[in-house]
Amino acid sequence: MKYREAGVDLDAAERSVQSLGKLVQSTADAYTLSEIGSFGGLYKVPSDVADPILVSSADGVGTKIKLAFMTGVHDTIGRDIVNHCVNDILVQGARPLFFLDYLGLGKLEEAVVSEVVRGVAEACKENNCALLGGETAELPDLYSPGEYDLAGFIVGIVGRASLIDGSRVREGHVLLGYASSGLHTNGYTLARHIIFDVMGLSHDSEIPGLGKSVAEELMTVHQSYLPVLIDPLSHNSIEGLAHITGGGIPGNLQRVLPQGLGAVIDRSSWEIPPVFRILQEGGGVSIEEMDRVFNMGIGMIAVVEETETSSLISSARERGSDAWVIGEITDGGGVEYK
Amino acid sequence: MKYREAGVDLDAAERSVQSLGKLVQSTADAYTLSEIGSFGGLYKVPSDVADPILVSSADGVGTKIKLAFMTGVHDTIGRDIVNHCVNDILVQGARPLFFLDYLGLGKLEEAVVSEVVRGVAEACKENNCALLGGETAELPDLYSPGEYDLAGFIVGIVGRASLIDGSRVREGHVLLGYASSGLHTNGYTLARHIIFDVMGLSHDSEIPGLGKSVAEELMTVHQSYLPVLIDPLSHNSIEGLAHITGGGIPGNLQRVLPQGLGAVIDRSSWEIPPVFRILQEGGGVSIEEMDRVFNMGIGMIAVVEETETSSLISSARERGSDAWVIGEITDGGGVEYK
Repeated sequence: MKYREAGVDLDAAERSVQSLGKLVQSTADAYTLSEIGSFGGLYKVPSDVADPILVSSADGVGTKIKLAFMTGVHDTIGRDIVNHCVNDILVQGARPLFFLDYLGLGKLEEAVVSEVVRGVAEACKENNCALLGGETAELPDLYSPGEYDLAGFIVGIVGRASLIDGSRVREGHVLLGYASSGLHTNGYTLARHIIFDVMGLSHDSEIPGLGKSVAEELMTVHQSYLPVLIDPLSHNSIEGLAHITGGGIPGNLQRVLPQGLGAVIDRSSWEIPPVFRILQEGGGVSIEEMDRVFNMGIGMIAVVEETETSSLISSARERGSDAWVIGEITDGGGVEYK
Repeated sequence: MKYREAGVDLDAAERSVQSLGKLVQSTADAYTLSEIGSFGGLYKVPSDVADPILVSSADGVGTKIKLAFMTGVHDTIGRDIVNHCVNDILVQGARPLFFLDYLGLGKLEEAVVSEVVRGVAEACKENNCALLGGETAELPDLYSPGEYDLAGFIVGIVGRASLIDGSRVREGHVLLGYASSGLHTNGYTLARHIIFDVMGLSHDSEIPGLGKSVAEELMTVHQSYLPVLIDPLSHNSIEGLAHITGGGIPGNLQRVLPQGLGAVIDRSSWEIPPVFRILQEGGGVSIEEMDRVFNMGIGMIAVVEETETSSLISSARERGSDAWVIGEITDGGGVEYK
């Protein structure tokens, strides 16, 4: 009996590692020391950061991944996981150093793995992040044929003086909401249930009233806020940052509020993108539940001095992004809507 | 409709995060700056390492995880993934700094998550590694009920002068094989197929001739070689290291051989543990395939000067481990057996 007969193909794994090597090498920077195939990836600690702190995060893309299985489009999932991770360390003021991925699959299909890793590698390049390695594991008895899970792991760096930890957040600070590109990577179990089971659409159906297909809308790549926020962060114009993921605005903004402070969000201050209204109506979901599950059009919230808002908004718009003043920090506890 | 009805329980996720927090905090060290619940984990770059290089690795535990589902024992899988990752960076001379995990589940069962993370946290403590955070994701449409996948990410550090990259490996160097504790985390798709499908055993059956149950043998924790190798590494007594994982001795030793050098392994130099003989006979597997899929009783190979061998072997035995001279570096290419 050979291992292949039990469902694991070591030769395919080896070929896959080789073709991925080129993609990975394209993300290397001056600090990258190793090539793929060594046991661990090597990265020099940058010497130009005073009191350096490493900021690290692990994440997945949730059941957004099911859209990739449905459509056969796999690179966008790779981009999603990188951008998600970049945002998660950005909120502490860190810029990315390197990224690793874990890809568990039912069967190692080289074309699928290449597409996922192509997306990962391209997003790494866009975020000035080295793709240092990763693991591709064939687990035939755990994942169904054609299915896989993808986890990402990022390490970034910030000097202690530039660390954002919420301690600078004060009453009267303004909440600047940055536009999301769509659902990002949260709420997909509910969204898929509403779209496919309740509304009876398929991935290539046009969403009524949206002029876009289900796949087009639901597979829009999770936006990286690094390009928009890297300059303001370097000028210390940001007092706090919340990446709006699972838990929505209330759940994530709460995490950056110092004890005794609260936040009020003005619902009328930005236009909730149509997809969220369609999901809400299609599924009969309460607004409270919508707020907790989805980003509702706001992918990142910056806590800033009021005097900074106009230049931050202009700067975002110059980079093709959008931002609005959506609320403020108050002396009450918790996150409330008005 | 609530998110819970679509299969995701945000309250359970929140409770789970809180109970895990204590476990995670127990692994904190002087460099750990953040608690669980912030977006990214924070870790100060240690200032006592000259020319510091970060060494990072991502890995999974393969289908060994299916044994956890069968038996309801989940902490050992947590220990497996940490030790596996520790070994993967140890081979480049690095000691662990911090670890993050990704746990994707069909349904978030708090008892299961706690047990997995307890194993992760305990192994992190044993390896002087901070558990900096992680992601627990409920993906009801991807994993079957009661099933999950577990990925680990580790970051370690090594000074450039102590980096092991194979460049010091020379003809005539001796191969020191360190005993594995069992299958570690490789070859489980084949092993499970042979044990359960071909031999018709169940997880609580005694393996004939072994005096141990299937679960006891197959769930033995992947050994960490940090305790045995940290001193020899600090004294620069090691020229090269290969962690014997998927690909076996040939596949992994090859990765540390400089161009033009080879290795000869003497099969008679160590006793292959009975479980591998039982798998080979039970499955009718060729010895070449066995060598490529399983570690065959050798979990780590150190390339050393012959003069170092006796003190390294004594030192391993003092720590309750075992090691044997199992071969040498030759001027031929490739890894051969005699």
